[in-house]
Amino acid sequence: MKVVYVSYPPSDAAEADVPASADNALGLREHLTSRGHELVTTSDTGDGLDEELTDAEVLITTPFWPVYLDGDRLAKTSLKLVVTAGIGSDHTDPEAAQQHGVTVAEVTGSNVVSVAEHNVLQILALVRNFVPAHEEARNGGWDVAKVVAPSHDLEGKTVGIVGLGAIGARTALRLKGFDVEMLYYANHRRSAGEEASLGVRYARLDTLVERCDVICLALPLMEGSQALFGPERLRAMKPGSWLVNTARGAIVDRDALVEALESGHLAGYAGDTWYPQPAPADHPWRSLPAGSEAMTIHCSGMTLEAQDRIAEGVREMLDAHLDGRPVPADFLVVDPAA
Amino acid sequence: MKVVYVSYPPSDAAEADVPASADNALGLREHLTSRGHELVTTSDTGDGLDEELTDAEVLITTPFWPVYLDGDRLAKTSLKLVVTAGIGSDHTDPEAAQQHGVTVAEVTGSNVVSVAEHNVLQILALVRNFVPAHEEARNGGWDVAKVVAPSHDLEGKTVGIVGLGAIGARTALRLKGFDVEMLYYANHRRSAGEEASLGVRYARLDTLVERCDVICLALPLMEGSQALFGPERLRAMKPGSWLVNTARGAIVDRDALVEALESGHLAGYAGDTWYPQPAPADHPWRSLPAGSEAMTIHCSGMTLEAQDRIAEGVREMLDAHLDGRPVPADFLVVDPAA
Repeated sequence: MKVVYVSYPPSDAAEADVPASADNALGLREHLTSRGHELVTTSDTGDGLDEELTDAEVLITTPFWPVYLDGDRLAKTSLKLVVTAGIGSDHTDPEAAQQHGVTVAEVTGSNVVSVAEHNVLQILALVRNFVPAHEEARNGGWDVAKVVAPSHDLEGKTVGIVGLGAIGARTALRLKGFDVEMLYYANHRRSAGEEASLGVRYARLDTLVERCDVICLALPLMEGSQALFGPERLRAMKPGSWLVNTARGAIVDRDALVEALESGHLAGYAGDTWYPQPAPADHPWRSLPAGSEAMTIHCSGMTLEAQDRIAEGVREMLDAHLDGRPVPADFLVVDPAA
Repeated sequence: MKVVYVSYPPSDAAEADVPASADNALGLREHLTSRGHELVTTSDTGDGLDEELTDAEVLITTPFWPVYLDGDRLAKTSLKLVVTAGIGSDHTDPEAAQQHGVTVAEVTGSNVVSVAEHNVLQILALVRNFVPAHEEARNGGWDVAKVVAPSHDLEGKTVGIVGLGAIGARTALRLKGFDVEMLYYANHRRSAGEEASLGVRYARLDTLVERCDVICLALPLMEGSQALFGPERLRAMKPGSWLVNTARGAIVDRDALVEALESGHLAGYAGDTWYPQPAPADHPWRSLPAGSEAMTIHCSGMTLEAQDRIAEGVREMLDAHLDGRPVPADFLVVDPAA
């Protein structure tokens, strides 16, 4: 059986040797080849990959360096299983996968804490104006007035979490100690007990957007969330508010966001996710107005601890598949057998 | 009566007009002059200031742009009251103040939350390798491997807080949601109930240093804490651990820290405080090895909300002094009348 692992290339820096890079393939090489299977690793997400996929049964891809799989592309493959090494399988069209009998699975829970921590980090970085304060330290200046003029305490602010799944809930738990008011919107309202233990109150999305000083996106990319934060919703946000998006880049309208920051309507944006990925060097979110951003390349769910948990989950799925057992139910995103 | 207010100069950027800058003097000008008092504002902390202080009764200074006051200097003044617009009055020699009959007071509690938030921000920035991930986003790259190789979850780490006063305790409360093990060292051990509600356990300093992945300094600068983290103690820290210092720069030995980072023994340092301040452009902490720092110029306690609380406290002290009433007891650092 042929397994293809697609991920970001190894870094030029020798000390940056990490398990999830293409060459290291989460440590699966020995595991697969010793059992007589073939493993192909690549960072090619284009034509070269399509060629490899004609006779591959399993594709492992990551949200950090995604393979965008639509129906046309899937039709040219012999894939039976597409594994997301991480969480968020939106790069694979779920209906096309269903139609072509391809199982889609992800490592549920593997990096929810990692992303929740990143949410708090990016919220604090924006609200407290960290990036300019850091640059001033590096650049040799001491313009305290400039650095503190847009610097606020998080305490007392209203924070809205959009989507209250595993990541949103863990974000709320971490924000609870900061004396903030927390609202959330989600398709499914939590029980009163859960709301109390997370410290959150439910609000309709429009109310949340209108009332919050900080909005944190923690929902999957799907049909209903594509450009959910478009021109109109961004305009409906509070003047001087902040937006954090570790969810998926495409949930926020690319150009409307630039406009909202350039006009000063929003005070800042911190995104870890982009569309497409890898983001081209000239993606406009790379050059948002100075002092209005705390962007990172998609890395929130790729800490070393997360990589270990991802590797463990991927191996569990592969073993099941190779043994002819079903993929564990909690990992399933698309199950054509269902 | 003559009051001198010393703070950082206004910024060249017009939008950076903040209450605590020298020219704005926390909004005290009208308050003082309408009552027939004189207010002099300056950013000069040298000879020009000494001249002003010969006939001044009150000096207001800040930790962010401190006036370093020793006995020789105090002797040349007519000061009766030195107010720290903020917390941490180590720039004034307490014994010299006592000797010269000068009351020293600070705005207790004014920015403890602000600094506690900064502690969590700087811890997360270091542990999660934020600065290089941000730079990669700005520079047009997408080297995920390079960015994540030194990136960790905070979850499960052992965090040590040195000093568990108002700031340390608020830092602990904010870290509690992150599923970390927390140790603390302080001169006075908290009650069992307080320890439980903060989620911390007491340890001797040597034990804490040896066991912690992250150490956060939250103690005042005083005789016993000067260079408390010198060459030996830095060497005793866990290899690959992180150090955060929003307390005072002089608590960490300047050159020993550079050495600990250059050798790779410590993974990172995030300091908000420096010695002296303003830090000269060639201060070696401005050029710590790339990827090993998340420095800010001293601004943690200068959010706009903190400035408002500081202004309120300073006004309360001035009013008391002008009316011949004692400065509120909770603000007193040195009380020659006691």
